[in-house]
Amino acid sequence: MYELLKEYQGPSSIPEMSLDELNQLADEIRTFLIQSVSKTGGHLAPNLGVVELTLALHNVFDFSRDKLIFDVGHQSYVHKILTGRIGGFRTLRKYKGMAGFPKTEESPYDHFNTGHASTSVSAALGMARARDLKKEDHCVVALIGDGAFTGGMVWEALNDVGYRKTPLVLVLNDNEMSISRNVGGMSLYLSQLRSDQHYEKFKKGVQRNVEKLPLGKPLSDTMRKMKDTVKAMVVEEEGMIFENMGIKYLGPVDGHNIKELSTILKAAREFDGPVLVHAVTQKGRGYDFAVAHPDKFHGIAPFDCENGEVCFRSGKNYSKVFGETLCDLAAKDSSIVAITAAMPDGTGLSSFAKRHPDRFFDVGIAEEHAVTLAAGMAISGLRPFVAIYSTFLQRSLDQLIHDVALQNLPVTFCLDRAGIVGDDGETHQGAFDISYLSMIPGFTIMAPKNMEELSSMLRYAKNIQGPLAIRYPRGGDDEGLRLPALNDFTLGTWEALDPLDPEAPIILLGTGKMTSRMAQAALELRERGIRARAIHAPFIKPLDERMLKDLLKAQHIFTMEDGILSGGFGQAVEAFLGRNGYQGRITTWGYDDIFAAQGDVHLIYQEHGLTRDAAVEAICALYPGGIR
Amino acid sequence: MYELLKEYQGPSSIPEMSLDELNQLADEIRTFLIQSVSKTGGHLAPNLGVVELTLALHNVFDFSRDKLIFDVGHQSYVHKILTGRIGGFRTLRKYKGMAGFPKTEESPYDHFNTGHASTSVSAALGMARARDLKKEDHCVVALIGDGAFTGGMVWEALNDVGYRKTPLVLVLNDNEMSISRNVGGMSLYLSQLRSDQHYEKFKKGVQRNVEKLPLGKPLSDTMRKMKDTVKAMVVEEEGMIFENMGIKYLGPVDGHNIKELSTILKAAREFDGPVLVHAVTQKGRGYDFAVAHPDKFHGIAPFDCENGEVCFRSGKNYSKVFGETLCDLAAKDSSIVAITAAMPDGTGLSSFAKRHPDRFFDVGIAEEHAVTLAAGMAISGLRPFVAIYSTFLQRSLDQLIHDVALQNLPVTFCLDRAGIVGDDGETHQGAFDISYLSMIPGFTIMAPKNMEELSSMLRYAKNIQGPLAIRYPRGGDDEGLRLPALNDFTLGTWEALDPLDPEAPIILLGTGKMTSRMAQAALELRERGIRARAIHAPFIKPLDERMLKDLLKAQHIFTMEDGILSGGFGQAVEAFLGRNGYQGRITTWGYDDIFAAQGDVHLIYQEHGLTRDAAVEAICALYPGGIR
Repeated sequence: MYELLKEYQGPSSIPEMSLDELNQLADEIRTFLIQSVSKTGGHLAPNLGVVELTLALHNVFDFSRDKLIFDVGHQSYVHKILTGRIGGFRTLRKYKGMAGFPKTEESPYDHFNTGHASTSVSAALGMARARDLKKEDHCVVALIGDGAFTGGMVWEALNDVGYRKTPLVLVLNDNEMSISRNVGGMSLYLSQLRSDQHYEKFKKGVQRNVEKLPLGKPLSDTMRKMKDTVKAMVVEEEGMIFENMGIKYLGPVDGHNIKELSTILKAAREFDGPVLVHAVTQKGRGYDFAVAHPDKFHGIAPFDCENGEVCFRSGKNYSKVFGETLCDLAAKDSSIVAITAAMPDGTGLSSFAKRHPDRFFDVGIAEEHAVTLAAGMAISGLRPFVAIYSTFLQRSLDQLIHDVALQNLPVTFCLDRAGIVGDDGETHQGAFDISYLSMIPGFTIMAPKNMEELSSMLRYAKNIQGPLAIRYPRGGDDEGLRLPALNDFTLGTWEALDPLDPEAPIILLGTGKMTSRMAQAALELRERGIRARAIHAPFIKPLDERMLKDLLKAQHIFTMEDGILSGGFGQAVEAFLGRNGYQGRITTWGYDDIFAAQGDVHLIYQEHGLTRDAAVEAICALYPGGIR
Repeated sequence: MYELLKEYQGPSSIPEMSLDELNQLADEIRTFLIQSVSKTGGHLAPNLGVVELTLALHNVFDFSRDKLIFDVGHQSYVHKILTGRIGGFRTLRKYKGMAGFPKTEESPYDHFNTGHASTSVSAALGMARARDLKKEDHCVVALIGDGAFTGGMVWEALNDVGYRKTPLVLVLNDNEMSISRNVGGMSLYLSQLRSDQHYEKFKKGVQRNVEKLPLGKPLSDTMRKMKDTVKAMVVEEEGMIFENMGIKYLGPVDGHNIKELSTILKAAREFDGPVLVHAVTQKGRGYDFAVAHPDKFHGIAPFDCENGEVCFRSGKNYSKVFGETLCDLAAKDSSIVAITAAMPDGTGLSSFAKRHPDRFFDVGIAEEHAVTLAAGMAISGLRPFVAIYSTFLQRSLDQLIHDVALQNLPVTFCLDRAGIVGDDGETHQGAFDISYLSMIPGFTIMAPKNMEELSSMLRYAKNIQGPLAIRYPRGGDDEGLRLPALNDFTLGTWEALDPLDPEAPIILLGTGKMTSRMAQAALELRERGIRARAIHAPFIKPLDERMLKDLLKAQHIFTMEDGILSGGFGQAVEAFLGRNGYQGRITTWGYDDIFAAQGDVHLIYQEHGLTRDAAVEAICALYPGGIR
């Protein structure tokens, strides 16, 4: 079954393989990917699309000295297989296992870590300039998808690339299933490298595949149009835009033809200046279900290879609740609009896009633009809801400050994946948003204790006349204790939870997902002789100053948040208490100046002591004799 | 002298004026601008360049209902004159005076506040989409310079603009003195609007001007080349790029010809979709010194109209010290490179650019790219120093986290204009960097107490194996107490200042520019019977834990920082003390959840209590009987 994979001798053996062998190896890699990812989950479709491209890159370049930077990096699985990490797929994206993105610490063949989009051209240019200054002799290659071209950072970098003519190879992995009409009208600059007939055949083959299987997802149309706009810029008129910027354009080339790819990559390797190779690939290639539903198979949970069905149907989650609630609110309030940055599915906005298409705006991987677009809408009387993952909103800090907060505009930011996200690892943890939002004057920050409360918060949003952020975690609610959701809110007012014991000396203060842990811990502590009570902070900012003043007589206050401690919720509480003469102790739980690792969220919470049990144990250890 | 300006009846009178009158008004506005800005200082050259363009905009549009967004906004002076704010120029950029940027709170004719570059297309698109959803009927116009096109956010927005065909007028103010060779080869799409002869004449006139007066600044060449790359993208082949993106291109048009401008703007106004008008203007137009030295007259201090000389020569400042020190370090260490984002002069890197041109990289207004470029260089063994103003580094938060800190790369960030910058106002205050850097694991943050110490810190940077930020203020040192600079550092070690009094119950802890204030306050407090001592924190992160543990017996610790309190230095100190059982009081001074206003920095410091006197008064009020 894995005849060649079993005998595979490492990257240096690839140039010695025949074309037939390479194609067989490609088939075996595809089979392996489908089998392996079906068990662990992971990014399947993007990797199926770059099997030949990755083989061709290793065929032409020697990445023991040449450098390869993967944009985003979720398409690095084939590269990992080829560089001695096939054994790592058993622990793909698991706690202490192999990462789903490139990691320099994993292999000398990984040269720059990625995870977020649109960084590869900048990083590659930096490496190429370093090479030249140090008078070294190797190639630098960036592999970047067409989607990443919607991110402005790529254009900042391309502008710089063309300026000094630093030799550099950019490989545009154009993986749209529906090939743009413009591509057909193009010719290769190096015409001897091109087989028009073959390319036409390839194109027709792809279209047949697309027609054969229904797309299923109306949203993919939107995204495709979006990408097409970019592609029109990119490939029309024989790569004019790249050429205008001083970047040699080579392409388009069939991204599944190892021979053609190798020839064009060799030409690129020898070119004395920046060059872009335009490879056309098919996302999900070789696995019909993935070809038909590339969105579903982009990043997928474990699934059944035979029918492509995901093994465990996930239940309700925060994203769905967000999408459904916003749909309903928008039906009643015509001023509500929704904005996403290339994440209509992930953020739960697919249904909104269907029900309110004229009020739905997917701007591409363009978080900076998304925020200032919302500012322009808000200043004109609309009520924009901007749904961006916590980790990606880091891209928009300046726009949050400069365009939204300074003008005190009523934009609601819905921060999905706030806190630990798990398998995607360090690059994607939403650990910083409380800190970078709290420092901005005028921002209101909320976090629901459960999914139902998220609905309430979204309904409440209209009462906030300035910027509002609502942060909520990936997935759904914890099992166990089910606390009633608040239906309405008063700005900066917290909720004392049962048992209502105003005299309790031990206070457990939680926000978001941490609230129910603190509530459970309080109950257990009381059973163990420690008189504790829990408080829920639906508002991270502003603080409930009245309640905090009532707490000045407490003996020990504990806070728990799913975020970095510096500048976070606990420190804000501590600062307020300090200003008001609190004499008791305070302990803040969160991530203490450390990047949280990849893996199952429960394991990460355990590692950092952010669980009910950890709270109970820590407090019992402090007060072994109980406290009344 | 101001015949028409005196009689001027507001924007609605402009369409009723004859062309001769408009041209005379333009002359009078120029005279007024030169006279007025020579007294107050301000952005002169950009405004001299847009006199006719602004008049033409008001001639064609009615900004009591149409919307006008100025990118960056430093070119809004003419608009301010035309909308009833000529009296405000006496207090331009002063404390509680008229802003140097658009301000919606100043006038109903200002529709969106700006300050940072590249935001206008996003904001305008948001406003245009809001108009359409609300079924309103007005035009939205964005005025954007060619420099802003180096910012990726513009491309994110253009991509979105072309996607849904929302009617919108973008005016590209192409104000390069040396008109790109490509411009000559272009033709107007609306050929009836174009007078080739006139345009050629205009072009020759500009070139004569340029040749007549020596340019003086070698750097302007670099910036011009940079901008040319962008311009090549933009204007070559008859605006192909815009047309490819679905944006109608009109131009180029002589930006000083009110008649031509009015005609083309009317065409743009009537166009049913997004349209870009390409106007070619001359920065500094009408004032020879500004034409010859547009960089010097971009933003300028008060100057003598007759000879163009700045009235008060500023002495040494932090930027100069930075530039000179880095030059010297680079002479000895070939791994050192310098990166700036369009601020070679402002950051003090001009001399570096001359002495080490192959190791100097000006990437344009592209802070995101600048940071990841540095990451690529650092991972390849170089030692990049990235000089970006504190307020602009907000653009790079994600790159700081994702590309630099997660890989623990040795990039040194030199944050000029950290803390209050003064006249540029709210949009430009460097108030947030301590907070957004402190939350990032692995970052070292330093702040020198004076300019000499900045030199020491730059020399010390090579000892830090991960990311390092050095923050320093605009301008130079305060007059008065001259504290000796540290020559060397030990990671996370602070400096006890004279008088060395380990038992003092009152501790004044300062960082950066605030240190000398705290030192002076300590001396004065001792004279007034309060036993205080001052400590200098050259490291904002990591904290000096050993010294802080020694301070656990203190009675009251005061911290002072030129930054926002939330997530800042004082709160980090407070959190550490709290964790270690400190029983005394702590007071943190900084900006308390508020955007600091524009105006002389001393007035702003006074307003927020960040002065020696404020510290002394506050502490004396707390301890009126003295403290021993």
